[in-house]
Amino acid sequence: MELVEIIKDSSRLFIGDEVGQDYLFDEYVGQAKSVHAVALPLTHEEVVALVKYANEKDLKIIARGAGTGLSGATAPLENELIIDLSKMNKIIDLDLNTMTLTVEPGVQLHEIQEYVESRGFFYPPDPGSKNSTIGGNVATNAGGMRAVKYGVTRDYVRTIRLVLADGRELTVGTLNVKSSSGYDIKDLFIGSEGTLGISTLIQLKVIPLPKVKKSYIIAFDNLLEATRCVNTILHSGIAPTALEFFERDMIQLSEKETGLVFPTKKGHSFLLATFDGDDASFIDQRAGVLKEIADKHEAEDYIILEGQSEKDAWKLRDTLLTAVVNYTEQVTMDETVPIHHIATIYEYTKELEAKYGLKLMSFGHAGDGNLHTCVLRGDIESDSEWHETLDTVLNLLYNKIQELGGLPSAEHGIGIIKKKYFGKMMDPVYLDLMSSIKTSFDPTNRLNPGKLVI
Amino acid sequence: MELVEIIKDSSRLFIGDEVGQDYLFDEYVGQAKSVHAVALPLTHEEVVALVKYANEKDLKIIARGAGTGLSGATAPLENELIIDLSKMNKIIDLDLNTMTLTVEPGVQLHEIQEYVESRGFFYPPDPGSKNSTIGGNVATNAGGMRAVKYGVTRDYVRTIRLVLADGRELTVGTLNVKSSSGYDIKDLFIGSEGTLGISTLIQLKVIPLPKVKKSYIIAFDNLLEATRCVNTILHSGIAPTALEFFERDMIQLSEKETGLVFPTKKGHSFLLATFDGDDASFIDQRAGVLKEIADKHEAEDYIILEGQSEKDAWKLRDTLLTAVVNYTEQVTMDETVPIHHIATIYEYTKELEAKYGLKLMSFGHAGDGNLHTCVLRGDIESDSEWHETLDTVLNLLYNKIQELGGLPSAEHGIGIIKKKYFGKMMDPVYLDLMSSIKTSFDPTNRLNPGKLVI
Ligand SMILES: Cc1cc2nc3c(=O)[nH]c(=O)nc-3n(C[C@H](O)[C@H](O)[C@H](O)COP(=O)(O)OP(=O)(O)OC[C@H]3O[C@@H](n4cnc5c(N)ncnc54)[C@H](O)[C@@H]3O)c2cc1C
Ligand SMILES: Cc1cc2nc3c(=O)[nH]c(=O)nc-3n(C[C@H](O)[C@H](O)[C@H](O)COP(=O)(O)OP(=O)(O)OC[C@H]3O[C@@H](n4cnc5c(N)ncnc54)[C@H](O)[C@@H]3O)c2cc1C
Repeated sequence: MELVEIIKDSSRLFIGDEVGQDYLFDEYVGQAKSVHAVALPLTHEEVVALVKYANEKDLKIIARGAGTGLSGATAPLENELIIDLSKMNKIIDLDLNTMTLTVEPGVQLHEIQEYVESRGFFYPPDPGSKNSTIGGNVATNAGGMRAVKYGVTRDYVRTIRLVLADGRELTVGTLNVKSSSGYDIKDLFIGSEGTLGISTLIQLKVIPLPKVKKSYIIAFDNLLEATRCVNTILHSGIAPTALEFFERDMIQLSEKETGLVFPTKKGHSFLLATFDGDDASFIDQRAGVLKEIADKHEAEDYIILEGQSEKDAWKLRDTLLTAVVNYTEQVTMDETVPIHHIATIYEYTKELEAKYGLKLMSFGHAGDGNLHTCVLRGDIESDSEWHETLDTVLNLLYNKIQELGGLPSAEHGIGIIKKKYFGKMMDPVYLDLMSSIKTSFDPTNRLNPGKLVI
Repeated sequence: MELVEIIKDSSRLFIGDEVGQDYLFDEYVGQAKSVHAVALPLTHEEVVALVKYANEKDLKIIARGAGTGLSGATAPLENELIIDLSKMNKIIDLDLNTMTLTVEPGVQLHEIQEYVESRGFFYPPDPGSKNSTIGGNVATNAGGMRAVKYGVTRDYVRTIRLVLADGRELTVGTLNVKSSSGYDIKDLFIGSEGTLGISTLIQLKVIPLPKVKKSYIIAFDNLLEATRCVNTILHSGIAPTALEFFERDMIQLSEKETGLVFPTKKGHSFLLATFDGDDASFIDQRAGVLKEIADKHEAEDYIILEGQSEKDAWKLRDTLLTAVVNYTEQVTMDETVPIHHIATIYEYTKELEAKYGLKLMSFGHAGDGNLHTCVLRGDIESDSEWHETLDTVLNLLYNKIQELGGLPSAEHGIGIIKKKYFGKMMDPVYLDLMSSIKTSFDPTNRLNPGKLVI
C-alpha cells in the first residue's frame, strides 16, 4: 500500500518537500535533515499500516508527540518516516473501579490534568511542558515538579498498547495491582525514547485529588545553605509535594519573559516548596516545621503563597527554561546525583564558570537531586572558541557527575545530545545488554535509529 | 578450576550423592531429580567462579535462597549446579544520606525488618515467609501484607549487583532518585526467577518508621459482603497498610497449628486491616471511618486489636498457608484480578466446589485483588480421580481469571507449576519477546532452564 492509501486525508500527510520546518528539528539545535514523509494517523490501525509500509520500503521510523523533547530524540537523521501521534488525542475513559484513565498517546498533559482534576482525581506527574503529549511523557519517563512526593511517569503507567517494529501489536502491563507473571516489559518500554515500539493507547493510574495545597518560598543568601536546607527538609519527614530550587539571575530572566514580579527582593538562591493534603491543618502543621527548618538554616526570607501569588510564583518557575532558551545560546543539562551531592555539583559549576569564562546557571528539582545546569555562551564571540570551551566544560561536568554516582539524564532522556556522555558514563556490559535488547525488539533497527542505543 | 578449588571449605560444598534431600524439592511437590552439586559461596567472586565452572562443564545453574518459593522455581530438572546464596547473609550498611540499606542476597527478610526497625526505619514489603531471603524476594518480586499501601519488593529495590550467565558482572539500578538514562534493566531482572542473572548484592530503599499502628478485625456473615466492604474501604481514601481476607474454616486450621484463639466467634468471613501513621489520633480518625463503613455493610463484629491481641491475630494470619499445607494435599494458587472482580472469582470457586466435590478455600490480600485459592483433595480417594478433577478445576479457574483480566501470579511467580496456565493466558507476542530477551541475556540457556520462560 502507498502512503496516500493509508492516510487518505491530505491534511494528515506531508510527503518530501511538503514537510514543514518544525519536523526537521526538535528543541535540539542541529543540522536539519531530510524527511521521507510525515503522517498523522488517527487510529491504531493506521499506525500499524504505516509501520508495515516502512518495513516494505525499508524506511526508518520516528514516533513523535508534541516535539517538546530536549534531547534531540525526534530529530531526523536518515530520511525517516515521521509518525506524528498528536492527532490521536482522545480521552477515552475514566474507570473508577480500577482508578484508571484511558487515553490516546497524543493527549496533552494539561488536558489530562484538567480532565481528572475537574472530576476530583489527580494525575501527579507534572513536567513544566504542559503541552507535551502523554506518549512523549511515557517514552521519556518524564519527571517534573511533583516527583519528590509522587514519583515520575513510570509510577503511573498501568498498560501501554504498542505497535512493534514489524507491525505486530502487544499490550504490556496490567490493570491488576500486583504481578509476578513474567518479565516486566512495560518498564523496559517506559523511557525507551521511541526505540522499542510506538504507543497507541495508554492506561494511567489516577489517585484521589488532595483537597488543599499551599506553596512557600524560602530565600537564602547562597546556594550552599539552600541545598543543606533541602537535606534537612527531606529527612524531616514532612514530605513536600514539590521542592524546586533556582537562583536570582535565572528568575530575573523569567520575570522578563512573563512580566510577573518575584515576591521577594531578599536573597540570591531560592527554594519553592508545596504541600498538599486533605485539610488545611495538616498543611499548616507541616509548614510550621518548614518554617523552623528555614530559621535554623538562617533563611533571608520565608513567604507563604496562596491564590494568585501561588499561581504567579509557579508560572515564573515553569517559564525558567523557556526564558533561558530565549535569552541566549545555551545547553541545558539534566544531570542527577544522589541528593546529598547537590551542593558539590553546584559548587563545581561555579568553579568551572570562574575558570572558563562562560556563565553556568542552575535550577532544578532539588528534592530529587536533579539539576538543570544551563551552560550559556555569554560573551564568547568566536564560534569555534564557544564550541571548544563548551565541550571542555561539559566533559568535566559529566566526569564529576559520574564520580559522584550520578547519571546524565534524570528526566529528559539521552536522545542524540547526551549519547556521547551516556556512552562514556555507563558500564559497557549494560550498554551491550541494551543493544541486544534493542535487537530482540527491532532486528532491522527500524525505530528511531541513532538515538539512545549505543 | 574444579569445584573443590573454588569452594575449599567442605561444609559449603556437596557433590552428587552428598546433596541433601532438601535441595531436590522446594515447596513444589514433584519428582525429585538428581543434582550435580550444591555450592554455598560466601563472596561475589566465588559466585563468578562457580558460574564460569558451569560454563566450562556445560552445566545448568539454579540460584537458590531459602527455598520457600511456591512455584517450583528451585526444583532441579537436569542435573544442575545449585548455587545456594543463603550463606552470603551480611547486612553491609544503612546509609542515611540516601536512605539505602545494602545487603547480601542471603539475608532473611525478618533480619532486615528487625535491623532497620530497631534504628527507626522501615522496609515495608512483608511476605508471610519471614525466613525467605531478600535475593529470593527480589527474584520473585514478592508481595505480602503491606502491598496495598506500600507496594511490593520491586518498589524498594535501588540497585542489584548481578552475575550474568557467562560470568560477567553488572550492577543495575541507581541510587539517584530519578533516571531517564537508558533501558530499565533493573525492573526486567526483578521477578525473573533466577533466569537472567544471580544477585550478589542488593541495595534497598528504606523509609521512616511509622510511629504507631493498630489492627482491626471485621466479621461478616458471608464473603460477598466482605468483598463489597473492601471496595468501599479502598475508595474512601483511608489507605490501610494491610487489608487481608480469610474465612472461618481456614482460620480454624491456623488455630490448630498455632494453639491461638481467633478473637471472635461471630461471622464466617473476615477482614483484617491495619493502619499506621505518625500519631494515634491520625489512626483513630481513620478507624472511625472504617467502623462507619463496617456498619454500613452490616458487619457482624468489629474488633480493635492492640498489643498481644494484635500479634496473635497476625500470627494466625501468617500461619494460614502452612496450616493448609500441613492439613491435606492441596494446590495453592496466587491469582490476581482487578480488585472489583474479587467477589466474582470467589463465587466461582464456590460454584466449582459444589460441582466437582473437592474443597476450595480462599484467603489473600484483598486490598490488592490477590487471592490464594487452595484446592484441597478433601475426600477424593483415588489418585487418578484427584489429579483429573484438579486439572479440570484449575483449567476452569484460570480461564475465569483470564476472562476477568486477571493473571496467574500476583507474587509467587510462575516457576514450573504455573507455566502451563501462564503459556495459555499470556499474549503469544509477549511470550515471544520474553524468550528473545532471555536469549539476549543467556544465549546458552544456562540459568534456571525450564522455569518461567516458555
Ligand atoms: C519548556 C519545557 C519544559 C520542560 N520541562 C520538563 C520537566 O519538567 N520534566 C521533564 O521530564 N521534561 C520536561 N521537558 C521535556 C519534554 O517536555 C518531555 O521530554 C516530554 O515528555 C516530551 O513529550 P513530547 O510529546 O513533546 O515528545 P516528543 O518530543 O515528540 O518526543 C520525545 C520522545 O518520545 C518519543 N515518542 C513520542 N511519542 C511517542 C509514542 N506515541 N510512542 C513511542 N515513542 C514516542 C519520541 O520518539 C522521542 O524519543 C520540558 C520541555 C520544555 C520545552
Ligand atoms: C508459609 C509461606 C508464606 C509465604 N507468603 C508469601 C507472601 O505473603 N508473599 C509472597 O510474595 N510470597 C510468599 N511466599 C513465597 C516465598 O516465600 C517467596 O517467593 C520468597 O520470595 C522466596 O524466597 P526464597 O529465599 O525462599 O527463594 P527460593 O525459593 O530459594 O527461590 C525463589 C526464586 O528466586 C530465585 N533466586 C533466589 N535467590 C536468588 C538470587 N540471589 N539471585 C537470583 N535468583 C535467585 C530462585 O532461582 C527461584 O527462582 C510464602 C511462602 C511460604 C512457604
